[in-house]
Amino acid sequence: MTDKLIIFDTTLRDGEQSPGASMTKDEKLRIARQLERLRVDVIEAGFAASSNGDFEAVQSIANAIKDSTICSLSRANDRDISRAAEALRGANSSRIHTFIATSPLHMEKKLRMTPDQVLEQAKQAVRFARNLVSDVEFSPEDGYRSDMDFLCRVLEAVINEGATTLNIPDTVGYAVPELYGNFIKTLRERVPNSDKAIWSVHCHNDLGMAVANSLAGVKIGGARQVECTINGLGERAGNCSLEEVVMAVKTRRDYFNLALNIDTQHIVAASRMVSQTTGFVVQPNKAVVGANAFAHASGIHQDGVLKARDTYEIMRAEDVGWSANKIVLGKLSGRNAFKQRLQELGVSLESEQEVNVAFARFKELADRKSEIFDEDILALVSDESVTADKEQYGLVSLSQHSETGERPRASIVFTVDGKEVRGESDGNGPVDASLKAIESLVKSGAEMVLYSVNAISGSTESQGEVTVRLQNSGRVVNGVGSDPDIVVASAKAYLSALNKLQSKADRVAAQG
Amino acid sequence: MTDKLIIFDTTLRDGEQSPGASMTKDEKLRIARQLERLRVDVIEAGFAASSNGDFEAVQSIANAIKDSTICSLSRANDRDISRAAEALRGANSSRIHTFIATSPLHMEKKLRMTPDQVLEQAKQAVRFARNLVSDVEFSPEDGYRSDMDFLCRVLEAVINEGATTLNIPDTVGYAVPELYGNFIKTLRERVPNSDKAIWSVHCHNDLGMAVANSLAGVKIGGARQVECTINGLGERAGNCSLEEVVMAVKTRRDYFNLALNIDTQHIVAASRMVSQTTGFVVQPNKAVVGANAFAHASGIHQDGVLKARDTYEIMRAEDVGWSANKIVLGKLSGRNAFKQRLQELGVSLESEQEVNVAFARFKELADRKSEIFDEDILALVSDESVTADKEQYGLVSLSQHSETGERPRASIVFTVDGKEVRGESDGNGPVDASLKAIESLVKSGAEMVLYSVNAISGSTESQGEVTVRLQNSGRVVNGVGSDPDIVVASAKAYLSALNKLQSKADRVAAQG
Repeated sequence: MTDKLIIFDTTLRDGEQSPGASMTKDEKLRIARQLERLRVDVIEAGFAASSNGDFEAVQSIANAIKDSTICSLSRANDRDISRAAEALRGANSSRIHTFIATSPLHMEKKLRMTPDQVLEQAKQAVRFARNLVSDVEFSPEDGYRSDMDFLCRVLEAVINEGATTLNIPDTVGYAVPELYGNFIKTLRERVPNSDKAIWSVHCHNDLGMAVANSLAGVKIGGARQVECTINGLGERAGNCSLEEVVMAVKTRRDYFNLALNIDTQHIVAASRMVSQTTGFVVQPNKAVVGANAFAHASGIHQDGVLKARDTYEIMRAEDVGWSANKIVLGKLSGRNAFKQRLQELGVSLESEQEVNVAFARFKELADRKSEIFDEDILALVSDESVTADKEQYGLVSLSQHSETGERPRASIVFTVDGKEVRGESDGNGPVDASLKAIESLVKSGAEMVLYSVNAISGSTESQGEVTVRLQNSGRVVNGVGSDPDIVVASAKAYLSALNKLQSKADRVAAQG
Repeated sequence: MTDKLIIFDTTLRDGEQSPGASMTKDEKLRIARQLERLRVDVIEAGFAASSNGDFEAVQSIANAIKDSTICSLSRANDRDISRAAEALRGANSSRIHTFIATSPLHMEKKLRMTPDQVLEQAKQAVRFARNLVSDVEFSPEDGYRSDMDFLCRVLEAVINEGATTLNIPDTVGYAVPELYGNFIKTLRERVPNSDKAIWSVHCHNDLGMAVANSLAGVKIGGARQVECTINGLGERAGNCSLEEVVMAVKTRRDYFNLALNIDTQHIVAASRMVSQTTGFVVQPNKAVVGANAFAHASGIHQDGVLKARDTYEIMRAEDVGWSANKIVLGKLSGRNAFKQRLQELGVSLESEQEVNVAFARFKELADRKSEIFDEDILALVSDESVTADKEQYGLVSLSQHSETGERPRASIVFTVDGKEVRGESDGNGPVDASLKAIESLVKSGAEMVLYSVNAISGSTESQGEVTVRLQNSGRVVNGVGSDPDIVVASAKAYLSALNKLQSKADRVAAQG
């Protein structure tokens, strides 16, 4: 019989922990819906005890998602675990994922605890969690750099306390496939009752081998859960990439012989949604979801591929949701056609009112742009003000001019709590002038740590989508804005980031 | 004794083959110099017989580079091999790399040859090449999907003809580490006289495992050469990434026990140069060279890292050439300081006249921008007109205006073969209007397949670097332009792309 491989997505938890990738509750909910559409088995929705914002995000996802198990991370203490259980109350199926570090370095430098104290706390945490939910995952943080004997003792103890999944993280991305696979194998052979739990792998990509390490943990080690993120999002070089691990298992079924629940046709939409939400671009030569990943998706048809596709392609672009960049709607398209296209693209807006707002934007865009592509529609709804309740700042109008030999100038009108104000400034370029015009009134003092423009489709006729990342007093937020005018998109993104700086609560550090 | 692992860089051959990544001779030469600084063992400089342009690129690299072996690809026929030898004549150390497909699918569909014909042609090609140079590499294209018995026969035969390196490509990125490692091992065990050649691995990243597969070929299979590219540049999901494979071997020396020539401190500069030249962005969560790859390089210092760096970092950012984004020069800096900083950044301009052009641009920039960062300097010299001889089109001045509720307009003055012309247009945004103003006069009819903005440093005070990719009659070219004004940068990039469309010769398809 073919075993099943459980796909545990942690885009919303470990992915979100990446500096600059933090998301609002609404953004996380939208991505969770897309993960449900992908048929991900377990969605790690956040770290409920880390902030009120994350508690609410986990809670709203637990209440909304029906088909996936919803998981919250928690440190190995009663308060964290109680908060996780509380946030998960509305879920059809819920899991608490508790962790504590077991490597000598982490125990000594980070926890300042002895191994025996760590062992005791791990046991207590799992026992406490099992009293609240039946599905409990335990992770020894930095497990791969832990002492084997000690790790076996900890894992044996937590199985006895009722842990149902044991996850062995390579927290710092130090593993190589052969060694990591054998590490999991040895653990499973040495820990008594190891067959009473499902073993899981969690790899980071610092040496570029997260996918291969995870799959070695599965093939050699016998793990049956992989923890991964869309686009490999995550701290530093990121986590194991969901799309790569899934397509490797599917394409090499002859070798892995494992069944998967994933509906791969939603992969590309998920990738775009995560990239647009976080502002983390996907490079063109990224496997599976990069713009060039399939020869015929790059816009250039090559002879060899046309003659015999198998000559150079081992997967079909359609199977992961690539479709030609086609004109889908125009100014005559109605509300129903728009709504249906949104559904086909995997976007479901929360309320009819949101559909109305998005449709109004669509009509406005169609007046200015004759051909509307799928990318335009996705940009339109990823523009955050569609779903935002009541923002402090909103763009009203912008005027800018630049001319060789003169300093560019911009004048911008925007609302502050509903009241219109006008700012003016010069700058190094029209974008710089526009943002300085905003800052001349807002005086946030925030430092801009990233400014990026995502190519939405090939031509400059398309909308530009701009991400602005601001840092202030140790907090980092992203704002996203889109418009056919790149200067206007930049101003929208900047105002959006300022809105987030106002609203976001601080967080505590979670597991790496 | 510790074996040496040979690093064979194919950024300029297999990397350049990626749709949209084609480079000019000058660009290839500049990257080759950086690869020499990196102390790459072998530089595959191109495919001399594919076009006159590539012949000249290989030739100029062979003449200029002293410390690395220079290699040209060639199909397995006398004409290709003669052209390769001719292009390589000036090299201190040269290699001819000849290939022919050996998989049933490629032999039947692409070559329309029988296995015996392929075997005979491989033998003849290696024999012919060995009469011209002493260092001959042979690759059975799609080797990993070839029949083992047939492949052994081919490899035995080419060793007898004098092939000094045998490279086994996973052309379509289908391998997994364990199987690929054992495939190489079996070949080495079964092929008579296998110890008379160095074995090499060449992996593609379609399933996200190119690095792990290459290293399995080394560790399990005993290969002692890895073929790779900067940033993993290459067709579809790209090739094995040089920076990842190198840092994995260095960081896990305990496991691999191999020596490397590479001077890793030049890795980040090489990554930026390749990204800026090709317009292929590097995603922030890319291992080693992504902006977030090291916690403290993302601009955000985290408690855990500050307390004990080893807790979360297995490599040091400085070791691969990351340095803080610091102010290095200002408007009072002189020509010598500028020239020295260029050298520190790994940029060497060809002539004093080029230094003068770049320095003039630097002064112009410093007048408009008070703080000049390393990124600004790199953008300045990567702007192609620094090194361009005589371009058909050149920007003179630009004026543009956009205002909410009105259609953006631009007016642009540029030279056509030295004569000034003025174009005007409206557009969906100021960038679109500017490019339409150019096109209204040039009427190239080219299709824009990519428009992207590289974030140079965090703030919009920096220069924006724009890449425009144009496609016309099956040819694809990139133009790059930089300026603090993003609209001006876009116009420069568009004109640069038009210049390339004028000058580039067609190419034939090379090995995948």
